Amino acid sequence: MNARPLRPVMSVDEVNSFLDEAFPQLNGANRDYEAISITPGACVVRLHAGYRHLRPGDTVSGPALFTLADIGGYVCVLSHTGPEALSVTTNLNINFMRKATAGPIDGHCRILKLGKSLMVFDIDMRAGAGLTVAHATGTYAIPPKHVVT
Amino acid sequence: MNARPLRPVMSVDEVNSFLDEAFPQLNGANRDYEAISITPGACVVRLHAGYRHLRPGDTVSGPALFTLADIGGYVCVLSHTGPEALSVTTNLNINFMRKATAGPIDGHCRILKLGKSLMVFDIDMRAGAGLTVAHATGTYAIPPKHVVT
Amino acid sequence: MNARPLRPVMSVDEVNSFLDEAFPQLNGANRDYEAISITPGACVVRLHAGYRHLRPGDTVSGPALFTLADIGGYVCVLSHTGPEALSVTTNLNINFMRKATAGPIDGHCRILKLGKSLMVFDIDMRAGAGLTVAHATGTYAIPPKHVVT
Amino acid sequence: MNARPLRPVMSVDEVNSFLDEAFPQLNGANRDYEAISITPGACVVRLHAGYRHLRPGDTVSGPALFTLADIGGYVCVLSHTGPEALSVTTNLNINFMRKATAGPIDGHCRILKLGKSLMVFDIDMRAGAGLTVAHATGTYAIPPKHVVT
Repeated sequence: MNARPLRPVMSVDEVNSFLDEAFPQLNGANRDYEAISITPGACVVRLHAGYRHLRPGDTVSGPALFTLADIGGYVCVLSHTGPEALSVTTNLNINFMRKATAGPIDGHCRILKLGKSLMVFDIDMRAGAGLTVAHATGTYAIPPKHVVT
Repeated sequence: MNARPLRPVMSVDEVNSFLDEAFPQLNGANRDYEAISITPGACVVRLHAGYRHLRPGDTVSGPALFTLADIGGYVCVLSHTGPEALSVTTNLNINFMRKATAGPIDGHCRILKLGKSLMVFDIDMRAGAGLTVAHATGTYAIPPKHVVT
Repeated sequence: MNARPLRPVMSVDEVNSFLDEAFPQLNGANRDYEAISITPGACVVRLHAGYRHLRPGDTVSGPALFTLADIGGYVCVLSHTGPEALSVTTNLNINFMRKATAGPIDGHCRILKLGKSLMVFDIDMRAGAGLTVAHATGTYAIPPKHVVT
Repeated sequence: MNARPLRPVMSVDEVNSFLDEAFPQLNGANRDYEAISITPGACVVRLHAGYRHLRPGDTVSGPALFTLADIGGYVCVLSHTGPEALSVTTNLNINFMRKATAGPIDGHCRILKLGKSLMVFDIDMRAGAGLTVAHATGTYAIPPKHVVT
């Protein structure tokens, strides 16, 4: 598994347009989940947590935070390998640390390794005052590129 | 952390009614996620995967399977400790193994440990012909019971 | 990632001899860790927990149980793909549930998926009266076979 | 689960002496594992990887890196809550990213949450040129303090 250079090949706008087209179910009428920044080896993704992401006690649900973590990894792999690759999550481990209420939650995502066939990342999800509400580590499998000859 | 007896105190109907009331966002108009069986130390939960749970390629999304795993653990802790406890997921680790298409996916969930303050479980999620599509392990924190005097 | 048939190609004795040669550091003078049984899609591995595996309170250490889990996965992949493959662990998630004292601990290991390049497994580690002391899920990366022509 | 202040109450020397006494099996004649620095909410631990930590191909073994991760979390909880508490690991998830050879490996460990009964941490394990060889996330259960009256 060789390392790839950590250099983004897509912009924030290109990534968000790609997400809208590829995952119409994700955001519905609004853009609940979106990429905010893309830098070498990292990205920030945001969840605008509203009613449909809440659970009893008006706290953001585990599945909504899992989705944010999954999207963070996806935006990292997409922005660093390009839009033609159909990568899939193979493993995700998430710890829930504090309750979060409605409002923006930012996922700060880092590429820990970008190999030929696997990408490993972690993501720190922070709400309001910057406190970590959840943290996840995951792996995406990157399919071989179709080489057209 | 003492062990509790592995004896259900709620029926499948009671659990499903509780889910409907406590998590109105979960199922919308239909009952996409539901408990199917409850036995000592175990339960089966079902996802009726439809359009809103799919991703490109018409495969069931990671967040939909995460939600099934999370609900499996919740139904285990709820059915074995009773409806008054507000338990929360603290950790969930999920592996995605095969693609699943629209239709029922059954999560076979086992309690690995039911302590005073933590429950550990695993869940094997199977589609169609019985093949495992995803597998998860997780922990719920169980709050102390409010003792009314 | 295609599935491979779940059919062992090595016996318990062959696997133990391979472990002795390939991992001389693992067992020292004794055979602390060994394979006990190999069946289609599964194996049992045993740790004979002695002084060097204990921690304060005379309980079996986390690293000793991690090693048992890791060996369980290794014996599964080795026995089902053959001795020429140099597989490596890419992810392992372990939950510690109960204290274990000196004596045998059996790891019941199942292959959840055996693909072309990845194997996913889980392992239930039981001591004495059969109670689960720890449970793990992990992934091995399987390198492509060297094809000699 | 209330937050505790992130303020160390033990020095590096105090922590290393405590490890020597409490875990005589850990280091044998040498001090293979040791604390290097302790700061508010974080610590650095080092593995001096030698023959007994290697596997075929002269790479540092998974269990040796697991042990480093586990000790990183232990040093964080010990240095921030004091030597009287007997904390235990309840969950550890580790990803192996690159091979490491004999020599020092530094584990940079962060407290993600220090609650009344649980501490969550992550640890980035780096060798030689500073490349991450493994990354882990884990949870320690912190027992209630014995109050002497």
